[in-house]
Amino acid sequence: MKIIFASAHDVDPDTWINPLKALIPDAEIHPWVDNGPTIDAQLAIVWNPPADIFLREPALKAVFNLGAGVDAIIKRPGLRDDVAVVRLEDAGMSAQMAEYAVYALVRASRQFDQYEKQQEQQVWQPLPDIQRQKWTVGVMGLGVMGTRVAQTLAGLDYPVAGWSRSAKEIAGVESFSGTDQLPAFLARTRVLINTLPLTAETTGILCLDTLRQLRPGAYLVNVGRGEHLVEADLLALLDAGHISGATLDVFREEPLPQGHPFWQDPRITITPHTAAASLREETIAQVAGNIRRYMRGEPLTGVVVRDRGY
Amino acid sequence: MKIIFASAHDVDPDTWINPLKALIPDAEIHPWVDNGPTIDAQLAIVWNPPADIFLREPALKAVFNLGAGVDAIIKRPGLRDDVAVVRLEDAGMSAQMAEYAVYALVRASRQFDQYEKQQEQQVWQPLPDIQRQKWTVGVMGLGVMGTRVAQTLAGLDYPVAGWSRSAKEIAGVESFSGTDQLPAFLARTRVLINTLPLTAETTGILCLDTLRQLRPGAYLVNVGRGEHLVEADLLALLDAGHISGATLDVFREEPLPQGHPFWQDPRITITPHTAAASLREETIAQVAGNIRRYMRGEPLTGVVVRDRGY
Repeated sequence: MKIIFASAHDVDPDTWINPLKALIPDAEIHPWVDNGPTIDAQLAIVWNPPADIFLREPALKAVFNLGAGVDAIIKRPGLRDDVAVVRLEDAGMSAQMAEYAVYALVRASRQFDQYEKQQEQQVWQPLPDIQRQKWTVGVMGLGVMGTRVAQTLAGLDYPVAGWSRSAKEIAGVESFSGTDQLPAFLARTRVLINTLPLTAETTGILCLDTLRQLRPGAYLVNVGRGEHLVEADLLALLDAGHISGATLDVFREEPLPQGHPFWQDPRITITPHTAAASLREETIAQVAGNIRRYMRGEPLTGVVVRDRGY
Repeated sequence: MKIIFASAHDVDPDTWINPLKALIPDAEIHPWVDNGPTIDAQLAIVWNPPADIFLREPALKAVFNLGAGVDAIIKRPGLRDDVAVVRLEDAGMSAQMAEYAVYALVRASRQFDQYEKQQEQQVWQPLPDIQRQKWTVGVMGLGVMGTRVAQTLAGLDYPVAGWSRSAKEIAGVESFSGTDQLPAFLARTRVLINTLPLTAETTGILCLDTLRQLRPGAYLVNVGRGEHLVEADLLALLDAGHISGATLDVFREEPLPQGHPFWQDPRITITPHTAAASLREETIAQVAGNIRRYMRGEPLTGVVVRDRGY
């Protein structure tokens, strides 16, 4: 069993390969070498893999992604329909997404930025208490990430709804689904938290047409993908005053280019794609477990439905 | 049934008295008038009441506080042992305390302050991922507030312990109790969140002797009372590098005086006693419900055990 390890991360591949070898001693795991020869790998373990990975390794039967979103992998040329694309499930990411969402929401709703300014000026001035019924939360995408985000905020007594492709039942979370129910979901939502996977259907879903349907004074948290958001539309709605602010972790171009208008917009908070990082130990255990299942001929978990895109 | 309403808040008493009257129409509710005559009230509804309230209203049988902490009331002269002191239970406060604690913890653990500085300089630089096992949380006080705080942070996968006078059982929270177990609780804790009531036993409990037992790089969140903290000891441990930072909502003197060293200390985040405000509607419903129970001769809820102080 030959496995190729290919990560665009600026990391030493051995820090992944060695613990993986310890868990799957029967496998040969080779690091990807740019411009190197094919190794006839059956499996690949990847994160943002090289453009030619599927062209150079045509014998691949399955590719294991070290993240949840597989949009970049699916676009690589030469990926055959019969290759299983496997995404990471949670691996510590959902708790991080949830705390990131709480942080972004609470910083806006409780005006902690304003308290910081007051502290600089030694001003003791309580601001008006918030009423949670005015801070309706809407979570787009109800996979492992979105569900955890929705449950956490519902647990803090915010009125939470979720929107997903197919209807979901989550205790304490109002469910909306499909294109038909998107307007009703948006109309009730003030804080919109995007956790959707990136697919043909969701690209550009955060645009003028949808964002203007949010409640006035809306706040956007994007922890999905940069391509979900039409950046100019967000700026237009911020300027119009319909959206009050945004916390963005993902961008159409990453790193966000120097001089991009988001950088110095005081209404926008930027983090460099760090909302949720898969935890190394959990990731390695999950991938190794799946590879052992493959070697025993058992079904894999986390296989992406290709025509759905996640 | 005569009731006196006395709040030091700069609010129109009618905004409280009118809705209370609607719920307890059989009662006469009078606003406190400074230097006015006694009205022979049986009950009082108060928040930070005038110093002479018990001297001027000696017929009081019970006093209902519009907050959770009754330390200020208990110190007022003339309060007889047989007067029931009733505190507010939750009334929307525990969810606010919990989100405040998540915010303060996550801002420190995930270094959101550092990302803000990077944004100012248009720097895209992911910081090292955090390992939750290194961010052990310790919650002091496991009443309604502390329990909610502890449960919320445990729900975000932080290792959480609680310390209280008597042992408590809370799912997912390691329990410590009493003076004997305080050292063990402190030794395992990196983020200390204080929700204790202020009593003779807890005054000054956050001091050099206790805080230096925390893990190196400790972070303090004080949402209890200012008198819990020996302010000079916190500054000494910040200077020594043993404590890395603090988020403080309460202070020995409020408003925090101009020129106090906390104001301009970059390691300290200040909010003006706004971590948790009782919600008007829930507060009114809770107090009115208790007064109706009193009028029917039924037991009250939330009665403070006077020699315990909460």
